[in-house]
Amino acid sequence: MRRGHVNIRKINIESAFSRFTETFSPKIVADLNGQQVKLVRAEGDKVPWHSHEKEDEMFFVLDGILDILWREGQAELHPGEFLVIPKGTLHRVVPKGHVKLLLFEPATTQHTGTVRSEITKDKLDRLA
Amino acid sequence: MRRGHVNIRKINIESAFSRFTETFSPKIVADLNGQQVKLVRAEGDKVPWHSHEKEDEMFFVLDGILDILWREGQAELHPGEFLVIPKGTLHRVVPKGHVKLLLFEPATTQHTGTVRSEITKDKLDRLA
Repeated sequence: MRRGHVNIRKINIESAFSRFTETFSPKIVADLNGQQVKLVRAEGDKVPWHSHEKEDEMFFVLDGILDILWREGQAELHPGEFLVIPKGTLHRVVPKGHVKLLLFEPATTQHTGTVRSEITKDKLDRLA
Repeated sequence: MRRGHVNIRKINIESAFSRFTETFSPKIVADLNGQQVKLVRAEGDKVPWHSHEKEDEMFFVLDGILDILWREGQAELHPGEFLVIPKGTLHRVVPKGHVKLLLFEPATTQHTGTVRSEITKDKLDRLA
């Protein structure tokens, strides 16, 4: 059992999105089991081909349409759809319009993998 | 890099829910980083107080209203809201009506923790 006060509070995803407007700047909204839940806005064809050597990455579309491309295929994700890109898989994402995404991934994940690009962030903001 | 064929496909959450009707029977829809994404329907006041010694547990409400109670407080979650119950925290959930939930938790998580009850499942079905 955990001792003392436990800080537990709910996150409303729409409210959290209302707190930022930047694109390609994932915001951490929860930490659990060494993983993080992040919210991100995406717009424009800016994400380079990249891979994550150690981390599987989950893309969950909340609003808008997101194309995800990998070597052998691609998928068009609509709201309420998600996809897991396994570690070591070269991939990129192309938003159609403005897209809101929820990501589940290890706390160690760099959003552009080992590739540095104009959108690479070294330190992410926290909304919760 | 991963060798050979990579099996990547999107999951549509509404379609996945249409494939089952049982309540309190979490269905695995994705595996990533030792974690699992599960979908579950909940209805009725059936979940006993329990805790997970090693696992933080995330409850994300997709449809309906879910009360989550812990020793020091409680929260009412509506669609688009989520909450993380830290490991070691005694908690229970009370659905108001029929609730659809997404869970994100380690593959090792037992849904009623170390407590056995009428709803305890030892082996979960997989939808993907």
